[in-house]
Amino acid sequence: MNLDNLYSELTLKTSAKIALVVLDGVGDIAIKENGEMTPLEAARTPNLDALVAQGVAQGRMIPVAPGITPGSGPGHLGLFGYDPLEFQVGRGVIEALGLGLELKPGDIAARANFCTLDKAGVITDRRAGRIATEVCQELCGKLTKKIKKVGDVEVIIKAGKEHRFVVIFRGKGLEGPLTATDPNREGLKLLEARPENPKSAGQKKAAKAVAEFVKAALPVLASHSKANGFLMRGIAHQPEIPLFQDRYLLKPACLAVYPMYKGLAQLVGMTKIEGPTTIAQQFERYLAEYANYDFFFIHFKYTDKYGEDGNFEAKRKAIEEFDAALPILLQKKPDVLAITGDHSTPCPMKGHSWHPQPVLIHSAFSGSDKLDRFTETGANLGSLGVFEAKFLIRYLQANARMFDKFGA
Amino acid sequence: MNLDNLYSELTLKTSAKIALVVLDGVGDIAIKENGEMTPLEAARTPNLDALVAQGVAQGRMIPVAPGITPGSGPGHLGLFGYDPLEFQVGRGVIEALGLGLELKPGDIAARANFCTLDKAGVITDRRAGRIATEVCQELCGKLTKKIKKVGDVEVIIKAGKEHRFVVIFRGKGLEGPLTATDPNREGLKLLEARPENPKSAGQKKAAKAVAEFVKAALPVLASHSKANGFLMRGIAHQPEIPLFQDRYLLKPACLAVYPMYKGLAQLVGMTKIEGPTTIAQQFERYLAEYANYDFFFIHFKYTDKYGEDGNFEAKRKAIEEFDAALPILLQKKPDVLAITGDHSTPCPMKGHSWHPQPVLIHSAFSGSDKLDRFTETGANLGSLGVFEAKFLIRYLQANARMFDKFGA
Repeated sequence: MNLDNLYSELTLKTSAKIALVVLDGVGDIAIKENGEMTPLEAARTPNLDALVAQGVAQGRMIPVAPGITPGSGPGHLGLFGYDPLEFQVGRGVIEALGLGLELKPGDIAARANFCTLDKAGVITDRRAGRIATEVCQELCGKLTKKIKKVGDVEVIIKAGKEHRFVVIFRGKGLEGPLTATDPNREGLKLLEARPENPKSAGQKKAAKAVAEFVKAALPVLASHSKANGFLMRGIAHQPEIPLFQDRYLLKPACLAVYPMYKGLAQLVGMTKIEGPTTIAQQFERYLAEYANYDFFFIHFKYTDKYGEDGNFEAKRKAIEEFDAALPILLQKKPDVLAITGDHSTPCPMKGHSWHPQPVLIHSAFSGSDKLDRFTETGANLGSLGVFEAKFLIRYLQANARMFDKFGA
Repeated sequence: MNLDNLYSELTLKTSAKIALVVLDGVGDIAIKENGEMTPLEAARTPNLDALVAQGVAQGRMIPVAPGITPGSGPGHLGLFGYDPLEFQVGRGVIEALGLGLELKPGDIAARANFCTLDKAGVITDRRAGRIATEVCQELCGKLTKKIKKVGDVEVIIKAGKEHRFVVIFRGKGLEGPLTATDPNREGLKLLEARPENPKSAGQKKAAKAVAEFVKAALPVLASHSKANGFLMRGIAHQPEIPLFQDRYLLKPACLAVYPMYKGLAQLVGMTKIEGPTTIAQQFERYLAEYANYDFFFIHFKYTDKYGEDGNFEAKRKAIEEFDAALPILLQKKPDVLAITGDHSTPCPMKGHSWHPQPVLIHSAFSGSDKLDRFTETGANLGSLGVFEAKFLIRYLQANARMFDKFGA
């Protein structure tokens, strides 16, 4: 029997409130240079410690599979209970979400960036000399003005940072994925975007739209000295993802500050609550919206940001900032509260990693693992063990008593 | 390669004796109200402690899948090494086993209960006013007397507690599952039991037999003021389960007191050893039967019973009763001994739960996790980690040196 079907069959509607607090990239590794401490261990977290003392179950989560370092997309899909191997989101889609573009089902999104071509059309600089963001915006504005449609397909262009931008193709019957137009090195010409499945009519239509767009766009850029061409990658459509609310019988809301996380939440049908910009404000808003939703995804970016910078002290302080705000959330304690990351972002690695992130669950039925704090090494000793992140939501539902007994 | 096939190919016949002691529902959660202790932690268990001191491997087991709370059926199938998602046992079958009925392969079993119908056939009380068990027995006796067969299908009826009973349909070519005749609420009429797969000839035949039975049975009950109708649910056939002895090359015996556990053991082909009613007597009988079997499933009910009652003290004492009897078992120590539960039944929840149950394995090759006691938080630290219960039997076989090396 399919396990997702079993979960669905056993799911009961309850009035329980669940909050999932994601400290992005919170997991870290202890190295000698940092006093063999992780930021979670080094941080002063009196409020988190008090929560642990009230009784929590701890463990560590494998974001995707052993040794796999996830991007934010797979990391969050896993947390939302969608197997990141089954539900893959193209890089173009992620990039579009990151720029705050709203995607519709069937939209094809592509990551693009300006490049320099010589007279023969050979790529001489894959990043167009990393033109300034303002130049990118100006060029994207030009393209937008000139190209609204290719055939019956609407084209939406949005500038990103430096040489980067995103192109959305919106129309009937489009499908991805397509191969990249980027040959991946200089000294070669642009490639055609081709259907990954040559039999797919939708991919053929999308490939035609991309080709027409390239044909229409190159003349618009021709006069620019550096950015007279562009490369496209990760050309894929927004995947069909079962709605969170249908899948878990929970009405979900997203309290995130950064566009990408709002976008990922929106992909699974969460309602975006706009406005708050600090974790304290996010928790305040949770209090205000408590009655309106069953599930709150609350995203805190800075643990990841400072991990990416390799800034141990700043990551530690970010955790302390979260800890200082935690009592606001606890003013209306959700029936089930999870605190975790979407992956680890160890400071010594200055990037995402595969290290299982620590997780805690607090509810009337979580029991207590009798640990003093919430840390990586503490979580190693917890009752949840090491498990795949896609099962977290199932534990949260179980703690919310949302599952009927299986069998007699 | 299919993993079960691999295990089979590697399995060697040895003379090792394995005992699996199931303290039903032993796992629990620590909450403040119980001094942040579980019954296992609170119990005085000198004999278990001595066993742990001799060297045991510990861990925790997920009965079915993360967050899933199993009934006794899936819980025990998992312990017997059968994936509970693959081998599903209908509620009618479990109920029949619980009443001590012996099922044959192909039998269809249904959970039934008396209900009250008005003159138009509308259900006015789904439990027939919870008639006394004696009344139920009398009515089942009447039905048995009047209805021995429907067509070529034999009918077996057995009364349960209060308004509950079980009906077995025995004949060639019958298959389940069928939909329930129970509309699940009052104010509606009885439904027809229909094949869940409309293309199955066996299910059609079974549905016909059920319909004829209902037609024949209602007139027999018509004169009763309360129990003039009945509802049927969980109508399914006994699944085809590979025999335990063939699968593991172990000759198995069941030492259980309660009918349901004897029935579950019988489902996989264990020999039921009848007679003992206390855990001490069960262990005595194990000594007497030591030479006759390779595998002993010894079931202790009371940890679950008192967990269901939410009676912490009684659950603690049940563990102490088991501990006091343990030296009897150890007079002829099996080569491999496992002590665990089929799931957790936390006192604060007064019911089964999804929390992984603790497990210990003791053998000459179990090694020692150097823990002082056998408890939930101790088991969190053990070498077995958190794993699916269906793999326990494989660890027991491995400890019994029943597996050849895989590959060179």
